[in-house]
Amino acid sequence: MLPRGRPRALGAAALLLLLLLGFFLLGGHLASFPCALPPRVPPDGRPRGAAVRDPHPQEDHGGHNRSDCVLPRPLPPKCELLHVAIVCAGHKTSRDVITLVKSLLFYRKNPLHLHLVTDAVARNILETLFHTWMVPAVRVSFYDADELKPQVSWIPNKHYSGLYGLMKLVLPGALPPDLARVIVLDTDVTFAADIAELWALFAHFSDEQVIGLVENQSDWYLGNLWRNHKPWPALGRGFNTGVILLWLDRLRQAGWEQMWKLTATQELLTLPATSLADQDIFNAVIKGHPALVRPLPCVWNVQLSDHTLAERCYLEAADIKAVHWNSPKKLRVKNKHVEFFRNLYLTFLEHDGNLLRRELFGCPSPRPPEAERLQQALAQLDEEDACFEFRQQQLTVHRVHITFLPHEPPPPRPHDVTLVAQLSMDRLQMLEALCRHWPGPMSLALYLTDAEAQQFLRFVEASEVLSARQDVAYHVVYREGPLYPINQIRNVALAQALTPYVFLSDIDFLPAYSLYDYLRASIEQLELGSGRKAALVVPAFETLHYQFSFPSSKADLLALLDAGSVHTFRHHEWPRGHTPTDYARWREAQAPYRVQWAVDYEPYVVVPRDCPRYDPRFVGFGWNKVAHIMELDAQEYEFLVLPEAFTIHLPHTPSLDISRFRSSSTYRGCLQALKDEFLQDLSRHYGAAALKYLTALRQP
Amino acid sequence: MLPRGRPRALGAAALLLLLLLGFFLLGGHLASFPCALPPRVPPDGRPRGAAVRDPHPQEDHGGHNRSDCVLPRPLPPKCELLHVAIVCAGHKTSRDVITLVKSLLFYRKNPLHLHLVTDAVARNILETLFHTWMVPAVRVSFYDADELKPQVSWIPNKHYSGLYGLMKLVLPGALPPDLARVIVLDTDVTFAADIAELWALFAHFSDEQVIGLVENQSDWYLGNLWRNHKPWPALGRGFNTGVILLWLDRLRQAGWEQMWKLTATQELLTLPATSLADQDIFNAVIKGHPALVRPLPCVWNVQLSDHTLAERCYLEAADIKAVHWNSPKKLRVKNKHVEFFRNLYLTFLEHDGNLLRRELFGCPSPRPPEAERLQQALAQLDEEDACFEFRQQQLTVHRVHITFLPHEPPPPRPHDVTLVAQLSMDRLQMLEALCRHWPGPMSLALYLTDAEAQQFLRFVEASEVLSARQDVAYHVVYREGPLYPINQIRNVALAQALTPYVFLSDIDFLPAYSLYDYLRASIEQLELGSGRKAALVVPAFETLHYQFSFPSSKADLLALLDAGSVHTFRHHEWPRGHTPTDYARWREAQAPYRVQWAVDYEPYVVVPRDCPRYDPRFVGFGWNKVAHIMELDAQEYEFLVLPEAFTIHLPHTPSLDISRFRSSSTYRGCLQALKDEFLQDLSRHYGAAALKYLTALRQP
Repeated sequence: MLPRGRPRALGAAALLLLLLLGFFLLGGHLASFPCALPPRVPPDGRPRGAAVRDPHPQEDHGGHNRSDCVLPRPLPPKCELLHVAIVCAGHKTSRDVITLVKSLLFYRKNPLHLHLVTDAVARNILETLFHTWMVPAVRVSFYDADELKPQVSWIPNKHYSGLYGLMKLVLPGALPPDLARVIVLDTDVTFAADIAELWALFAHFSDEQVIGLVENQSDWYLGNLWRNHKPWPALGRGFNTGVILLWLDRLRQAGWEQMWKLTATQELLTLPATSLADQDIFNAVIKGHPALVRPLPCVWNVQLSDHTLAERCYLEAADIKAVHWNSPKKLRVKNKHVEFFRNLYLTFLEHDGNLLRRELFGCPSPRPPEAERLQQALAQLDEEDACFEFRQQQLTVHRVHITFLPHEPPPPRPHDVTLVAQLSMDRLQMLEALCRHWPGPMSLALYLTDAEAQQFLRFVEASEVLSARQDVAYHVVYREGPLYPINQIRNVALAQALTPYVFLSDIDFLPAYSLYDYLRASIEQLELGSGRKAALVVPAFETLHYQFSFPSSKADLLALLDAGSVHTFRHHEWPRGHTPTDYARWREAQAPYRVQWAVDYEPYVVVPRDCPRYDPRFVGFGWNKVAHIMELDAQEYEFLVLPEAFTIHLPHTPSLDISRFRSSSTYRGCLQALKDEFLQDLSRHYGAAALKYLTALRQP
Repeated sequence: MLPRGRPRALGAAALLLLLLLGFFLLGGHLASFPCALPPRVPPDGRPRGAAVRDPHPQEDHGGHNRSDCVLPRPLPPKCELLHVAIVCAGHKTSRDVITLVKSLLFYRKNPLHLHLVTDAVARNILETLFHTWMVPAVRVSFYDADELKPQVSWIPNKHYSGLYGLMKLVLPGALPPDLARVIVLDTDVTFAADIAELWALFAHFSDEQVIGLVENQSDWYLGNLWRNHKPWPALGRGFNTGVILLWLDRLRQAGWEQMWKLTATQELLTLPATSLADQDIFNAVIKGHPALVRPLPCVWNVQLSDHTLAERCYLEAADIKAVHWNSPKKLRVKNKHVEFFRNLYLTFLEHDGNLLRRELFGCPSPRPPEAERLQQALAQLDEEDACFEFRQQQLTVHRVHITFLPHEPPPPRPHDVTLVAQLSMDRLQMLEALCRHWPGPMSLALYLTDAEAQQFLRFVEASEVLSARQDVAYHVVYREGPLYPINQIRNVALAQALTPYVFLSDIDFLPAYSLYDYLRASIEQLELGSGRKAALVVPAFETLHYQFSFPSSKADLLALLDAGSVHTFRHHEWPRGHTPTDYARWREAQAPYRVQWAVDYEPYVVVPRDCPRYDPRFVGFGWNKVAHIMELDAQEYEFLVLPEAFTIHLPHTPSLDISRFRSSSTYRGCLQALKDEFLQDLSRHYGAAALKYLTALRQP
C-alpha cells in the first residue's frame, strides 16, 4: 500500500510542472498526455470554469482521497470495451431494462458488453430483442438467475425487488472470472450522459478501493425517519446501490463472498430482514470496511425516491448524468421537479430504438453473420428500381419484443388452439371485443413505434377486460420502413403460439362465441393429432354496420344473411377469395366437407402450429394470405370446411396500403413481380406438383 | 496588441505552477479555477487520455496560436445566456430549422436567445411555434429579412440558398448593437453535443480574432475539381460558414461592413458571381486578413457534401459535435456512413418536441405570463378527480406548426369559402378524395406526433394529387395527452382560414362535387356579405360501402337514398343530430329554407370566418359540435338549409374515444360535467336568452 496525503500531492505537482514545461516546449498534444493521479470530483464529475461547489463533500466519506491531480479526467480509450451488469426478471422489468439500455446506447461511444442476469421470462424476451435489434458493437451475455437464487434465498428481505435485488451481491462469483471490472445498474436507472465518463472513474480508485458508489440521497440510514426505525448500519447517509462500480478481481481477491455473508449473518442476528435488499448488506459491509468504498459524484445516481434529498445535488450541478427511479411509485413519485425527470425518461422510453443501430466510427467491431448478410443484401439493391421500397422492406429486420405484457403460457392440452392475428394502433379498439368472443389463448403481434408501444401499454392497463386476460400474448414488432410488412408480423405471432393448433385470423374479424370450444372439439373428432394433414376452414362473413348485434348461432347468422345485414366476406369486391368455401353447401352442411383449392382462395383456417410460415416477401397490400393458402395446398393440406364455424368481419376505414394499391400502377406492378417470384420459388421447391398453380393463374 | 508565442507560454506555465501549489495546499476546487489561456484544440475539442491526434492541424492556418494552456476548457458559467442567429425563409427551411433547434435544446443546459432573420412566411410559422412550444429559458427575436435584402441583393449568387444565404454577412449590423457575440448556424446543421462547448471556444480567440470557423471539408477552394474551375480565393481549403462564431462588437469596430463589401466588389471584377453565397465572401475576406479567423475543431461542422473529406475528421475524433448537411441532396447524399448521420438527424426530426419543455435547474428564468398562468391552473387540478384527465387535457397547450407544407394564400375574393376540418394519421387516405371533391381552399389541422408529421410529409410528397394543390394549408397540432382535443384542433384550422367564409366539415365527409361553386354562389345570392347573420346548412348523408359511386347530382343522391345505399347521416344511431335539417322538406326544396335549432342539432355549416370558436373544453368524444351550433344559435345565427348542397360520410372504424365513451361510465359522467359547465357559462354569457337551452335539455 502506498502512503497517501499531501506529500504525494506535492510530488505530483512538481512532476506536473516538468511535464507541462515539456509539453509547451515540444508543442505536444494534451490529448496524448496521461493524468497519473485521480482528480477531485465536482458534483458533475467534470471540471468547469464556473464556480460550482459540491454541497455534499462526498469525498470525505472515507477520510482520504485528498491527493488528487488537476489534469482533466481521461475518458477510456476510444474503443475500449465497457462492461455493464444488470439483474432482470419478469415482463415488466424486461420493458424497463430496454429503456435503460436505450439511454445507454444513445450517449455511448464505446463498445459495450452487457451481462444480463435473468430469469427464463426475461431471457426469452431479451434474447429475441437483442437478436433482432442488431446494434453494432454491443455484446450480450446471459446468466441464469435461478441458478444463483440459492446463494441469496436464505436472506429474509422485505424490498419490492424481491430476491432479484439481492443478486448483485453474488456478481463477483457469477460473472466470468476474467472479467476485472463492471458497472452494475438497477433497471430503473436512466442515463443522461456517456457511461464512459462513469467508467473513467475506475481510474480514481485507490489500490484498496473496490466499490464505487454514490451517497444515498435520503435520511433513511440516519435512522430518524420514524420512531423505532432501525435501518441497517451505514456510514453516515450510506450509499445507494442503483449504480455500482465493481472492481471484480479485487473483490474476489479480498474474499468478498465470505465478507458479505459474514456481515449479513451477523446483522441478521439482531435485524429481522433486509429492507432495501442488497443495499443494506453493501452498506453494512462498508461500515465495517470503509476503505473499500470509492464515493462517486452525486450526479451519477440522482435518486428520486419519495423523500429524496437529491435536489441538493442537481440544483448545483451543471449536469445530471444518471437518474434513478428508486421508488415503487416510479414516474408517479411526488417531486416538484418530477416533470423534468419524467421528460428525460420518456425521451428514451419513446425513442425509436432503430436509430440506435449506429455504428461506432473507428472501432472495428465484427458484425454478427446475419447482420453482415443483411448488409450485403441491402447493398446489392438498386435504388433506381421502381420496386426498391418493396425489396428494402422485405429485407428489413424488425426489432421484436415478445410478450410485451405479462403472459401465462397455456397449460399443455393436445387439442388446444391459439388465435393468431396482427394489428397496428388503428385496430386497438378491436381487442376488447375479440377477448369477449375468444376465451382461449391468443398470440397477437402489434406493429408499433416505440412511442405507440407505450400508448398500447396504457390502453391495456386502462381496460378491465384486457388486463384480466393473462392468456393473450402481445408481441411488439417495431415499425420501420414505408410498407406494412404484414407477413413478417404474422410470422412473429405464429412463432409465439404455444398450443398444438393455431387459428390464423385477422384483427377485423370477430369469431362466433362458440368457436373456441367448437374448434377444439372438431380437432379431437377429426383426429388431426394422428397425423392427418388438414386445414379447417372457418367460413367468413361481413357486416357493414358499426353497431351490430352479433349472431349467437348459425341459425341466427343465416337469418341475418337472408335479411341482407350480413354478407359472405367480400362478396361484392372480391368474391374469388372465399367462393371455394362453398357457402351454399355450408348452409345445409351437418358435417365437415372437403373443398378444393382454387386461384386466389384465402380462407381463415385452423392448422397445426408447425404449418408453413407466411412468405415475408409480401409487404403492403395484396396476396399475402393467398400465397400462404397456396403453400398449404402445395404441402397437401386438405381443406375441410367446418359446418358450425363462422367469423364476421366488421367495417373499417380502408388501409393506406389498399389506397396505394388502387391508385398506383407502380405498386400493382411491384406486387405482380412479387407474385411471379413467389411462383418461381414454389415451382423450384415443389417441382411438377406446383405446375397447377401456374396453369390456374394463366387462365383468365 | 500583445506579443504572442513561447515567452508568454512559459510565463503562463510558471503562473500555473503557483496556482497549482495553492490549489493543493488549500484543497480548492478545480471547478473554481479559471483557465487564463486558450488551450490547443484536439478534433473533438475535449482533452482526452487516449492518443487521438488531429489529422487536420487546423490551428496552423493562421500560423500562430501555439501559446495554449493545458487546463481543461471552461464551459460558460452555468446560467450564461448564449446567443444563436439563424437566417430562415420559406416553408421548408422553417421545418428544417425546427430540427436544428430540437437538437440544440436536447443538449443545451444554458438559457438561449435565438435571433431569427426571417421572411414573412417563416416568421408567421415560427412565431406561432415558439409561442405554443413554451420552452423555458428560450427567448426568440425576429428580424425582417426583407429589410436586409437591399444590402446583399447587388451580389450575383448561384448558390441554392439564394439571397438568404448571403444575409449572414450583414448580421453585425442587423443584430442589436449591444449584442457582443453570437453563434451563427445554417438551418441544415444538427447538433450532437451541448452548444455551450462551442460557445466556450470564444474564450480561445486572440484579441485580433473575430470569426471562428471550421475548415471546409472538401477540395472546392483548391480549385482543382474540374477544368477551369475557378473558386473564390481562400486560405488553403478555406472555411465553411455553416457554423460561425461571430464576435460582433469587434467586427463592428473593425469596419466589417466596409471590409466585406470592398472585398466582394473587388472579386466580382473578375468572378461572375458567388458560387457558395456568403461563404465565398467570408473566405475572400479571410484570405486578405488571415488574422481575423479562429480555426475551430473540425467536429463542430462535419460537412456531408457530396465529395466530402469529413471522414478524415470523424473517424479519428471521439465525438461528433455538429453535422452539416451542406448538399442540396440533404439526407440523400451519397456517403458510406450516411446511415449513421441520417439516424442522428432522424433522432431529432422525430423527437417529441414536448419533451424539450424541460426547465433548467438552478437558472432562474421567468416564464412568459401565459406559461405562468397555465402552470398555476395545472397545479390547482386534483389528481384524484375522476375527470382529471379531461381537465388536464383541456388545459394542455399544444405545439402548433401552421402551414407545415408550402401554401399559397387564396387571392382575396368576397364570397370565397375555405373547407375547414381536422384529422389524424388514420384518416390520411381521405385527403386525395377530398381534394377531388373540393377544388377550393382548405385549412386542415392534423393531430400528429413529430414522427407522424414526417410520415405525413412523405405521404403528401408521394401523392400527385396532393402535391399539386398549393391552396390546401396543413397545420400540425402536436399530440399530447390521452384524450383527443378535437375542438382545439378545429380552432387551429379555423383560425388559419383566409377566406371570408368557412365550411366547417369533418374529414370523413366528401362534399358534392359542385359544392364549392354552389356555396360561393349561394353566399353571393343570399347577400351574406351585407351583415346577414346566417349559418348555411349542408345536409349530411352517409354510405356504408367502402367503394361507392358518388352521386353527381341531387337527383342521383335521392335515387341512392331511395335504393337504401345512402342514408341520412346517423339515421340509425343518432337521428337527433340532423333531424332538424328536415330531410323531407329538403327533397322538394327549390330555395334555401330556415330551420330552428333543437337539442343536439349538429349540422355541417358555412359561416363567416369570424364565427365563434369551438369550445376547447370538449375533448374526446361527445358534444363538441353540438356546443358550437348551440353557441351559433345563442348569437342569433339563422340556420338556412341549402337545397342543392349535400355531403356524404364514408364508413370508418369507430374511434378509440367513442369506444371509451361507450364502455366507461366515468367517461360519460365527465362528459356530462363538461356539458353542465358549458351551459352555465352560456347562461352567464348570454343571460336570459340562454335559458331556452337549459329548458330544452331538461325535457326527456
